Amino acid sequence: MPNLVRPTGRAFDELRPISLETSVTRYAEGSCLAKFGHTHVLCTASWEKGVPGWLKGKGEGWVTGEYGMLPRATHTRGRREAAAGKQSGRTQEIQRLIGRSLRSVVDLKALGENTITIDCDVIQADGGTRTASITGGFVALAMACRYLQTEGVIKASPIQKQAAAISVGLFQNHPVLDVDYPEDSEGEADMNVVMSSDGGFIEVQGTGESRPMSRTELDEMMRLAEKGCNELFAAQRAAIG
Amino acid sequence: MPNLVRPTGRAFDELRPISLETSVTRYAEGSCLAKFGHTHVLCTASWEKGVPGWLKGKGEGWVTGEYGMLPRATHTRGRREAAAGKQSGRTQEIQRLIGRSLRSVVDLKALGENTITIDCDVIQADGGTRTASITGGFVALAMACRYLQTEGVIKASPIQKQAAAISVGLFQNHPVLDVDYPEDSEGEADMNVVMSSDGGFIEVQGTGESRPMSRTELDEMMRLAEKGCNELFAAQRAAIG
Amino acid sequence: MPNLVRPTGRAFDELRPISLETSVTRYAEGSCLAKFGHTHVLCTASWEKGVPGWLKGKGEGWVTGEYGMLPRATHTRGRREAAAGKQSGRTQEIQRLIGRSLRSVVDLKALGENTITIDCDVIQADGGTRTASITGGFVALAMACRYLQTEGVIKASPIQKQAAAISVGLFQNHPVLDVDYPEDSEGEADMNVVMSSDGGFIEVQGTGESRPMSRTELDEMMRLAEKGCNELFAAQRAAIG
Amino acid sequence: MPNLVRPTGRAFDELRPISLETSVTRYAEGSCLAKFGHTHVLCTASWEKGVPGWLKGKGEGWVTGEYGMLPRATHTRGRREAAAGKQSGRTQEIQRLIGRSLRSVVDLKALGENTITIDCDVIQADGGTRTASITGGFVALAMACRYLQTEGVIKASPIQKQAAAISVGLFQNHPVLDVDYPEDSEGEADMNVVMSSDGGFIEVQGTGESRPMSRTELDEMMRLAEKGCNELFAAQRAAIG
Amino acid sequence: MPNLVRPTGRAFDELRPISLETSVTRYAEGSCLAKFGHTHVLCTASWEKGVPGWLKGKGEGWVTGEYGMLPRATHTRGRREAAAGKQSGRTQEIQRLIGRSLRSVVDLKALGENTITIDCDVIQADGGTRTASITGGFVALAMACRYLQTEGVIKASPIQKQAAAISVGLFQNHPVLDVDYPEDSEGEADMNVVMSSDGGFIEVQGTGESRPMSRTELDEMMRLAEKGCNELFAAQRAAIG
Amino acid sequence: MPNLVRPTGRAFDELRPISLETSVTRYAEGSCLAKFGHTHVLCTASWEKGVPGWLKGKGEGWVTGEYGMLPRATHTRGRREAAAGKQSGRTQEIQRLIGRSLRSVVDLKALGENTITIDCDVIQADGGTRTASITGGFVALAMACRYLQTEGVIKASPIQKQAAAISVGLFQNHPVLDVDYPEDSEGEADMNVVMSSDGGFIEVQGTGESRPMSRTELDEMMRLAEKGCNELFAAQRAAIG
Repeated sequence: MPNLVRPTGRAFDELRPISLETSVTRYAEGSCLAKFGHTHVLCTASWEKGVPGWLKGKGEGWVTGEYGMLPRATHTRGRREAAAGKQSGRTQEIQRLIGRSLRSVVDLKALGENTITIDCDVIQADGGTRTASITGGFVALAMACRYLQTEGVIKASPIQKQAAAISVGLFQNHPVLDVDYPEDSEGEADMNVVMSSDGGFIEVQGTGESRPMSRTELDEMMRLAEKGCNELFAAQRAAIG
Repeated sequence: MPNLVRPTGRAFDELRPISLETSVTRYAEGSCLAKFGHTHVLCTASWEKGVPGWLKGKGEGWVTGEYGMLPRATHTRGRREAAAGKQSGRTQEIQRLIGRSLRSVVDLKALGENTITIDCDVIQADGGTRTASITGGFVALAMACRYLQTEGVIKASPIQKQAAAISVGLFQNHPVLDVDYPEDSEGEADMNVVMSSDGGFIEVQGTGESRPMSRTELDEMMRLAEKGCNELFAAQRAAIG
Repeated sequence: MPNLVRPTGRAFDELRPISLETSVTRYAEGSCLAKFGHTHVLCTASWEKGVPGWLKGKGEGWVTGEYGMLPRATHTRGRREAAAGKQSGRTQEIQRLIGRSLRSVVDLKALGENTITIDCDVIQADGGTRTASITGGFVALAMACRYLQTEGVIKASPIQKQAAAISVGLFQNHPVLDVDYPEDSEGEADMNVVMSSDGGFIEVQGTGESRPMSRTELDEMMRLAEKGCNELFAAQRAAIG
Repeated sequence: MPNLVRPTGRAFDELRPISLETSVTRYAEGSCLAKFGHTHVLCTASWEKGVPGWLKGKGEGWVTGEYGMLPRATHTRGRREAAAGKQSGRTQEIQRLIGRSLRSVVDLKALGENTITIDCDVIQADGGTRTASITGGFVALAMACRYLQTEGVIKASPIQKQAAAISVGLFQNHPVLDVDYPEDSEGEADMNVVMSSDGGFIEVQGTGESRPMSRTELDEMMRLAEKGCNELFAAQRAAIG
Repeated sequence: MPNLVRPTGRAFDELRPISLETSVTRYAEGSCLAKFGHTHVLCTASWEKGVPGWLKGKGEGWVTGEYGMLPRATHTRGRREAAAGKQSGRTQEIQRLIGRSLRSVVDLKALGENTITIDCDVIQADGGTRTASITGGFVALAMACRYLQTEGVIKASPIQKQAAAISVGLFQNHPVLDVDYPEDSEGEADMNVVMSSDGGFIEVQGTGESRPMSRTELDEMMRLAEKGCNELFAAQRAAIG
Repeated sequence: MPNLVRPTGRAFDELRPISLETSVTRYAEGSCLAKFGHTHVLCTASWEKGVPGWLKGKGEGWVTGEYGMLPRATHTRGRREAAAGKQSGRTQEIQRLIGRSLRSVVDLKALGENTITIDCDVIQADGGTRTASITGGFVALAMACRYLQTEGVIKASPIQKQAAAISVGLFQNHPVLDVDYPEDSEGEADMNVVMSSDGGFIEVQGTGESRPMSRTELDEMMRLAEKGCNELFAAQRAAIG
């Protein structure tokens, strides 16, 4: 790929600078400020005793996600969803994805009848907010589980493996890793990939924006995603300590 | 795969009986009752002169999708979304997918400042309602475009290629084509694939339900999806005539 | 009435072709596709164990109705109520009427603490959707009650008599039976009449659209309604078998 | 009817004490406090220049009604609809009736492009709130039209005839006039009748509560309604002066 | 203040004519029609056995307030909040103030597990609706408590002292008492003061409308408020008897 | 006040550590992260060309405020308002206060037909979120105005003076400055004071929580507020530079 020039000068298979800072808020059982370049997401994990009604009495816990964006996280101010009176379809789609992804690496039996809510609030957005939310949300979740063990609420950690997510795309018809906003706006295709630390694919969501993707391109994009997630797994382990 | 027994006795790479009946309602510019086995979706294409505000004056048209399910389309009655006062996250996610998929095969310039709304209403559900919606929605859209050409509203057809969708999954750890509700409930993973008739992938949405998917499984599932979509393209051509 | 020419060529006291097809969906305890000419309403009866909170512990059951219209059931597409975030006043008025009418022919004590919800969804509309809903809804209800008896949920049928409904109107100043959409748009008055099979009037709702009705006209319209309902009672008995 | 004893001692064909007091508020273009016994409804007519969007440019005016009930208008406090976030189906049904009834006696062409909104707010309720609303609403409307003539907004009065409404019912199986709350709770049937002062029926809404009504009963109830409305027309003329 | 001329000719420290009429509705446990000049607020106190969920089992009662304005209480018609589907921020702010103010003079323990809801509905508005609501609401509350004592629901009165409220403002740069609508529209500042009959300040809410207030002005406004509240306390005692 | 011991060891007239960091986000025209001890509020000022409809063509600008709290800003997680579908009364009350306070120090004529929206999002809460919002919101507003001048959007700064806010309260019956959450929970009274840098009072909102406040206490609390605001004005000037 000699001709590809990414707006930030990154190599096609290079992540943005990644930072996963923990214990960033005073009250949450676990927290992580995840930065993927200029994308900053504050992730908190809140514990509550008990489970939603439909799960009561089964001896299982629940992990769920919520997502929001501050009105001026973006180039131009967006409408506050609380003022609009409802969450957009996009918001709901993302928070369903966060919850599903994190639950897939947790042993809900081991969690007991406890609920952990992962709030992912985007302070600043430059593409990839959902992947930063999942990656940072996992760290917040892991911190909260450690805290609950320390406090004796749960005996063993319910975390079975790590979960991380990254976006890949087609930009100037080249597969690229960790798509930022300028690349996303002009790119041909975009795929979010959620992986588990044992090499499995938890979720794959690819969309041809300006044209469909070929089988070959899909394959290459998935290879890039595997590389990116492996780097994120390492960053998560370093953050959790 | 000698040991796989699907509940309906189908081969692992066999679609359910497919029926795409056109001109099923009296008023819509285009319509199609899409049946994938026991899943029945009524798709109508409604034409309206003009475009949404943000698109005015650009000489382009718009194609959008809406999705709904009759309360008793399912085994147990679900709450009517109009009575609940809002559309669920799942509904919004599906209708965004329908719109995105169909727009990707339409030349919006050639459509001129016209809007076509594809309504996909599930009369009966047995898994795969979103793939039946997209496949049948394309037929309704094509019928409407032909009607608009006949009426002189548009000169050339804005349809550039066909779009169709199918689900694939892991059932008893085997990749299978066109997952029905019983298979989906017990299966390990599930992927919806939207393709264009030139062999491209418009959208890929895979989820590991009870466990992540391996790269090999993903590859095999995509191969099945290609086979299924090719059969759907043929059925669409037969329906449109 | 030598001068009256109805758009469809019907006699002033002639119903549209009536069809009440049963068992049209796979899951509902009872179902009926009611066609009054081009007006097609899918009616399903869904059983649920238990009753609403305010009725608990009284040993009585509940029958309720819900009504909806597919967006393109009409000449021009209407807004989807689930997307609008609320049901219109008209929708609520109709579903209150359906529930009230059907409850009036049911012995709620004999139903025990069970709830039956009648969903009436208009697939295609050409006037008279509420009368087709009540007439078809009764058939769906009767089918469900028979099923619940067979299953041993209830001992005796709670159905005490039949309920059916028809519209009558003034068109070109002549009383006419079973008003369709073109007649309704141009007619002077309109009345919906719900009757029980023992000749009683369950509900009478008449409106002078372009002028008030005289006492004589009201009397003649009610006579026509009696004739129409008697024909519907016969059609219901044939459908239920 | 020798055996009928109404709770208030009234004869079967006797209205409650009726009072239609005008000019009861300081700002409204027309107002009337309508009392039917213990039922008290404050009706105001508010004028606004212009018409709703869909009526613009047709040279016609619009008359519409809104209805509300103070939370403690009734024996036990009801929930405030503004707090509940929506108007009940009953409220919407009533305000549609008020608007339809009053428009039917107004020449909307003569009103010009003006809108008059009739607000009917129930201060105290003892049955018959919708009939008091229509009867008092007509007085408020007439007062507002006279004011608009005086001010030169309109040239001639758009009022073509009077509109009034009364309820009739079956109580202890006897037809009775002007049903109050205790009679309504125990009665067999209930009918609201809106009439115009030339003897026509604008709206007839009858419901068999505990049993269907016979043709004979319906006839007798309509006769009573005619008697009642004639007395209300006289009271309206006296109030308007 | 020789130059100050108030629109109504009142002295700077003069209340409008105050009237607190009790027992004005048939059903409420306590009621008061509070008139501060042309501002008329109907206050009812409704008793309900039991308390909100979060207060259950503590042996304490609850007093809460709701506030509404009839659409044509004002010079030009406002939108009905029930039709708008939500209460405005202003409405919510006022009803929180009413509840807080009245609770502060009640011994909730002595009330036992009972809830009293004070509904304040503005029939006509000319400024000062929130102060009339609190002043009249206290009277309705006191009447209800006396009724509950008479009925044996509570043993001793939970009322510990009186609560009343008045507005003060800066008009033509002079402090004035009991600001009416014309003064409020043109005035420089506005303050609502809620006092208890032992001379304490329950709530103070001052706003500089066209300019900030000086410390000296604030002091003078509070002195006026004390004078006004003392007159209101006397009027309340006379009303309650 | 020899006996007063504040939980944080502060003197009765001592602010918490104050930090007003500017330019904390990448996109907003002005921004400030305001910290009052553990209370952290992110304030952004967003510029939009044009004004709301009701202000068009008057040559004036508009400044408005919005307020939100991240779900886990508090000790226990609160419900996300966007998910609840509406902003609480408290939220609306606060954002009305922010807008009113900041508008009072801006010359809206000098702003021209431009709108500036101040978003105040609470990242962490420990009492005093509304006063930190106003104080930090002013800084964000001033930064945005300077930017708009630099860009030539406006000629002169529309900022006429500074606005800042602080809370004062009664804790253990002593007046104290800058009440934090533990003091607020146990305190007797609470007052928010918004001042302008010329010594005027823009807004005063005092509430007796467990008992009314005396005139003497009110006076002392206002003196403390003056002291606190003067310190905040200095901090603002240092931050803005």
